[in-house]
Amino acid sequence: MFSGAQVALYPMADDFVRVILGSLSAFDPYRDRFRIETDDLSTLLVGAPEQLFPAMRDLHVAASRGGVHCVLHATVSRGCPGEPDDPICTPIQGRGADMPLGQRVEAALAVVAGAPETGQAVAAQLSLYPLGAAHHMDEIYGCIDFVKRSGVFGRSKNFCTTLRGDAGPVFATLGEAFLRFGSPEGHLALDLTVSANSPTAI
Amino acid sequence: MFSGAQVALYPMADDFVRVILGSLSAFDPYRDRFRIETDDLSTLLVGAPEQLFPAMRDLHVAASRGGVHCVLHATVSRGCPGEPDDPICTPIQGRGADMPLGQRVEAALAVVAGAPETGQAVAAQLSLYPLGAAHHMDEIYGCIDFVKRSGVFGRSKNFCTTLRGDAGPVFATLGEAFLRFGSPEGHLALDLTVSANSPTAI
Repeated sequence: MFSGAQVALYPMADDFVRVILGSLSAFDPYRDRFRIETDDLSTLLVGAPEQLFPAMRDLHVAASRGGVHCVLHATVSRGCPGEPDDPICTPIQGRGADMPLGQRVEAALAVVAGAPETGQAVAAQLSLYPLGAAHHMDEIYGCIDFVKRSGVFGRSKNFCTTLRGDAGPVFATLGEAFLRFGSPEGHLALDLTVSANSPTAI
Repeated sequence: MFSGAQVALYPMADDFVRVILGSLSAFDPYRDRFRIETDDLSTLLVGAPEQLFPAMRDLHVAASRGGVHCVLHATVSRGCPGEPDDPICTPIQGRGADMPLGQRVEAALAVVAGAPETGQAVAAQLSLYPLGAAHHMDEIYGCIDFVKRSGVFGRSKNFCTTLRGDAGPVFATLGEAFLRFGSPEGHLALDLTVSANSPTAI
């Protein structure tokens, strides 16, 4: 199954180029696990879905460490028709993807409960898009149930759900939302925004 | 039908608050046509879908005028189940939504050809998510065909398609992609990113 993300960092600072370049070393441990392509709009990461969220977490935390208001946006996708299988991507069946919805919610909660803290507070919002599925709203409501019980739930908004807390459990929650919901072989997209150091943080 | 967007502006500058506040007057002509709610992550606009794209265009062009590298991100949605109909939103049936796919492509091209220029060059990328539809890839491929012939097509990337050109036809293309494709009564989401003044622009 093809999986990956288009990722962008937006540091709200005059020296945004330095902030971005300075954060890239946080990405080094993951670099050989992804195929990476960058242009002026975003960076493509192709690789195993369970690697994408720790990599994005470490990148965003590194860029935010200096106190700059910094936003990470990503479009994460798996199972997109028309994309070739890539040896660098792995299936997610081993993660209990065939379990009933309620059991998947419990498994996701256990992962988030064990997520390490990073010391960086963030706010985030996510929209989950299970595509081509007849019961797409069941999977979305199941995911929302999980997010509400994750310990980092913020609030429900139109078109998205917000999270607040340490970047560790927040990115873990985003990752479980992506990995556990929607058909395991189906086409699923997740749109996410993570913000640190906002002067208007609630 | 409920329609609206979650919109965020990211000026890459130390005085990002001033840039954002300074751009808000561009939004005044549209203000009474939307229900608006702002938090630290994004601003919700609820209103007629054909008003959303000119409003976002004028906001982004105003924020980018001073030369700051500025990104607008929006999650635009229509027909979301569970949302009440809102009197401020209008249906899109009058726009020929029941026409065959090929005719909708031609109608969309005519709108883009007549879009006024703004003098602001931008790059953009979009992902279209027709939800709950059995033939979601047909609508996506039809939309990609339109975008390729729009005059502002950039390139196809994994998970999204890029546009390059004046903000006028670029936002018109984004709007037509949202209005013309997917079931007229169905649940459709569009994820878009528009960038101006990037130092690494291609």
